[in-house]
Amino acid sequence: MKRSIEDTSVAFIGAGNLATNLAKALYRKGFRIVQIYSRTEESAQSLAQMVEAECTTALSDVTKDAQLYIVSLKDAALVRLLPEIVAGGERKALWVHTAGSIPMDIWAGHVERYGVFYPMQTFSKLREVDFRDIPIFVESRSEEDTRFLKDIAAVLSEQVYEATSEQRKSLHLAAVFTCNFTNHMYALAAELLKKYQLPFEAMLPLIDETARKVHELEPRAAQTGPALRYDENVIDGHICMLADEPEMQELYRKISESIHRLAAGK
Amino acid sequence: MKRSIEDTSVAFIGAGNLATNLAKALYRKGFRIVQIYSRTEESAQSLAQMVEAECTTALSDVTKDAQLYIVSLKDAALVRLLPEIVAGGERKALWVHTAGSIPMDIWAGHVERYGVFYPMQTFSKLREVDFRDIPIFVESRSEEDTRFLKDIAAVLSEQVYEATSEQRKSLHLAAVFTCNFTNHMYALAAELLKKYQLPFEAMLPLIDETARKVHELEPRAAQTGPALRYDENVIDGHICMLADEPEMQELYRKISESIHRLAAGK
Repeated sequence: MKRSIEDTSVAFIGAGNLATNLAKALYRKGFRIVQIYSRTEESAQSLAQMVEAECTTALSDVTKDAQLYIVSLKDAALVRLLPEIVAGGERKALWVHTAGSIPMDIWAGHVERYGVFYPMQTFSKLREVDFRDIPIFVESRSEEDTRFLKDIAAVLSEQVYEATSEQRKSLHLAAVFTCNFTNHMYALAAELLKKYQLPFEAMLPLIDETARKVHELEPRAAQTGPALRYDENVIDGHICMLADEPEMQELYRKISESIHRLAAGK
Repeated sequence: MKRSIEDTSVAFIGAGNLATNLAKALYRKGFRIVQIYSRTEESAQSLAQMVEAECTTALSDVTKDAQLYIVSLKDAALVRLLPEIVAGGERKALWVHTAGSIPMDIWAGHVERYGVFYPMQTFSKLREVDFRDIPIFVESRSEEDTRFLKDIAAVLSEQVYEATSEQRKSLHLAAVFTCNFTNHMYALAAELLKKYQLPFEAMLPLIDETARKVHELEPRAAQTGPALRYDENVIDGHICMLADEPEMQELYRKISESIHRLAAGK
């Protein structure tokens, strides 16, 4: 009987936002999730239950029965715990991390077969995402393992790429701007609207159109608003309105200056 | 024969992004656009042609034959040109501007019937938008004119609201954060990716999901990434990568601090 890629047994080290979404997506595609490790019992149990896996909160109990170990921890924890993590598991298996900014070489000297499996998306436990259009960037030391990772990624997504550690770091930096910083602009608007007793929902059509627009136009060409037009009346009025919020005021000023400079070609 | 709201004759003072989109939307719904004024002949002609209207570049030639004048100029120009604008037109008609941050009272002393018609969206000439889900905020001095503006808005959109000048100013400030500043985050990411020779298109699934997410979760709850986790390794690495871009580096630092503070409840 031919074995299919979905027979791969997978262990997850970490049960955070990314691990939760990835484990569930793999599970649904038929992969065997054998174990979930998390420092916190609740996280480990909750995810393990969803994907019919065992769970543990002790790195020394990490299973030896996985062919693929997906390590998805906060970057600082990954670096610190690496020796302990691999000590528990099967050294001959393939080990990957999922971090945008950590080079593949962090594995060197710890295990033989290693790599990176980086789905570039914003993940929250509370929200299910469709993996089909999430770009997944993989990297490994051998052609065979790269092929293996690409095959796994292709079960989930239509956008599978190889990327070097350097490229992945660049993508991750750009992603912080497009996702985290963008979301923070939403969050600051939400704070303002709360103060004015206006509903955040009123912003949703604007948020959607701003996102849709850059599918067609380059972001520079898509820009509008007072900073672009350098409409000092409006800018000064807004800065005045933010007098009680010095931090937001400073961000308003700096981002407006940056918009204006980019439009003027510096 | 009963006259319908679409028989209203409309003149546009201004042929910019907003005026272009609004004039086309009204034209398509059957409104009679009688004239387009723009300082630049090309803009006036081009829009006039699209909506079968006359055009002029002289404020002294503004038609007297409109029942509704929609003034959509850069805010500073509106303030400066107001006396000249109304001198040309029909003083008994209804006059509205479309600016988020300009109070309705700017009209006082110039014309009898006036108000505001503010579609809260980002408009570019190059991109057609669907007005149906654009919130339109109207304001006027009389119940009758408010009803009239709401009826016109309702032909275009399913989201029509009355808003005071104060509320509109607050909405506009929040809109600058959700739209212009958000788009600037996209633009900065695009600059970075160009430098690294990576395609901006790779960011689109992330941009879309970041926008979709806040339909379900509050922006604060939707946040992810190194600033939220206070992952100093990653943050320091990114700040290092931006060494050649001091302005982007400063924004990275300030926005990350702001994310972290908001998450910590200040």
